[in-house]
Amino acid sequence: MGEFDLIDRFFKRPAKHADLGVGDDCALLSPRPGHQLALSADMLVEGRHFLSTVDPATLGHKSLAVNLSDLAACGAEPRAFLLSLSLPRADVAWLQGFSQGLFALADAHGCELIGGDTTQGPLNISITVLGDVPRGQALLRSGARAGDDIFVSGTVGDARLALEVFRGKLSLPETVFRRCRNRMEQPTPRVALGIGLRGVASAAADISDGLLGDLGHILRQSGAGARLDLAACEGLLSCRHDVPLTDAWLRTCVLSGGDDYELVFTAPPTLRDAVQQAAIDSQTSVTCIGTVTATTGIDLLDRQGHRVDTSFTSFDHFAQE
Amino acid sequence: MGEFDLIDRFFKRPAKHADLGVGDDCALLSPRPGHQLALSADMLVEGRHFLSTVDPATLGHKSLAVNLSDLAACGAEPRAFLLSLSLPRADVAWLQGFSQGLFALADAHGCELIGGDTTQGPLNISITVLGDVPRGQALLRSGARAGDDIFVSGTVGDARLALEVFRGKLSLPETVFRRCRNRMEQPTPRVALGIGLRGVASAAADISDGLLGDLGHILRQSGAGARLDLAACEGLLSCRHDVPLTDAWLRTCVLSGGDDYELVFTAPPTLRDAVQQAAIDSQTSVTCIGTVTATTGIDLLDRQGHRVDTSFTSFDHFAQE
Repeated sequence: MGEFDLIDRFFKRPAKHADLGVGDDCALLSPRPGHQLALSADMLVEGRHFLSTVDPATLGHKSLAVNLSDLAACGAEPRAFLLSLSLPRADVAWLQGFSQGLFALADAHGCELIGGDTTQGPLNISITVLGDVPRGQALLRSGARAGDDIFVSGTVGDARLALEVFRGKLSLPETVFRRCRNRMEQPTPRVALGIGLRGVASAAADISDGLLGDLGHILRQSGAGARLDLAACEGLLSCRHDVPLTDAWLRTCVLSGGDDYELVFTAPPTLRDAVQQAAIDSQTSVTCIGTVTATTGIDLLDRQGHRVDTSFTSFDHFAQE
Repeated sequence: MGEFDLIDRFFKRPAKHADLGVGDDCALLSPRPGHQLALSADMLVEGRHFLSTVDPATLGHKSLAVNLSDLAACGAEPRAFLLSLSLPRADVAWLQGFSQGLFALADAHGCELIGGDTTQGPLNISITVLGDVPRGQALLRSGARAGDDIFVSGTVGDARLALEVFRGKLSLPETVFRRCRNRMEQPTPRVALGIGLRGVASAAADISDGLLGDLGHILRQSGAGARLDLAACEGLLSCRHDVPLTDAWLRTCVLSGGDDYELVFTAPPTLRDAVQQAAIDSQTSVTCIGTVTATTGIDLLDRQGHRVDTSFTSFDHFAQE
């Protein structure tokens, strides 16, 4: 199978919303009137972002999900994406699975493939995603203010827990493991919540590298700090009460585990009802875990109000060097 | 050096034209009023698109050049790009060279880096580029009509010639090799010519996989064929008269050599003066190599008007399978 056959067979679908889709030197796209385009890119590499044993459909899902998660974090509505794919070989079964998982998620969000590239090489999946956001309404990392509540969507830490099982560091009951593995392999981008938080959240980011690390981006870019409730954070782990975990594992998974693709966001206390309404409308649970402070740094407090060590690092691809 | 330090040090520069640049979950961009966004993505893999010995500054240039070439092919003006980079390690000297070569070309075209991703893995450079084009004026592959002239910009085949020297299949005088190598490693995207051809060219594509292959895309998407003048095609090789080449090598390089990043385009004979004016304004040579025909397929004719075999294949990343 040649490169163009491969594209025709698995990736060429007529553009429904873009002005021009796959098949020319460029695609053509216009934001809707009164909107800006929001853009983000993520690259997934075997052994680093996914295991070689992963089901290709699951991988197709995750490749787009991590990109849609960035759109969610800025409150944008998905429009289109470009896929650049480096493959060791043109494996039909793999391509069928991958494209099926990819397009199932894309279709669910009305996000169409409008371009990209395919080449031979070590497996690498590089996606650029584009969304629309009403001009001036994008959620940024820089808008958090002292006194704002800090919220997290869904559950956090499960993906890391599954990874540690794969690494042989932990073991989990089969049903719990399956749930955690599903969170790691098929994350749910919080697109509807992000859109619902326009005009409500003062700042937002998605949790890809770990809760403390990604909240840290918001705080740094807002020139602020945070006081966090450790018990509330620990409660973010879905299997908190199903498995016995040491405090160290629990905190590592929840505070510095990556790959969750939930949203961490801030909002003024006057808008608590609006936050709850956005959660209900998007059928996404939302947990308040603390407060933005004027002084920089993160204070993590246990039930007794004592400070807990937060020298967990968030995931960094070059941290070992 | 960590991932975020690496981004800050080499790739984070303030956005001048985009609404929001590097540093948040998404960048924000708007086309200028009355314009559409043109988008394209290209992925470069070591050993396939460049040699491991290549100078990193040269590679930075080429990585963006091949993307700008796609914008040129549709007559779009460069605006911004996203860079996803997989690196075996955070090598400062390499990053300095790469980013310097990349930004030199980006600045020359007013095309700013607004986002992307960095990760550890086999060397892979994935860029998505965005440009502006007045609504409805993009050059497409599908507009060629029987009777149109077929033009090619600049010189073609030099990059392939250099590659064959690296492969040990050919040898060239040092000065000729240097010129050919420069064409292979530092191609010039024909952005100004592409913009000048708006309203003039009936169809266009850039020559990345080989002249016959890329012209073939235009013809297929236009439902047309072509009659080409072999002598005019052979004249596209810059060192045509400087080195003794067999007919087979000459034709292979010119007709099916990739990596030239020139434009092949069609225009009605009534617009010949406008084509010449666009060439002069953009300081780019343009050569007429034939005519679009109503019957499909490509006829390549020698000086005596005899048909020449065109069973050259254009480059295909998965053709061997």
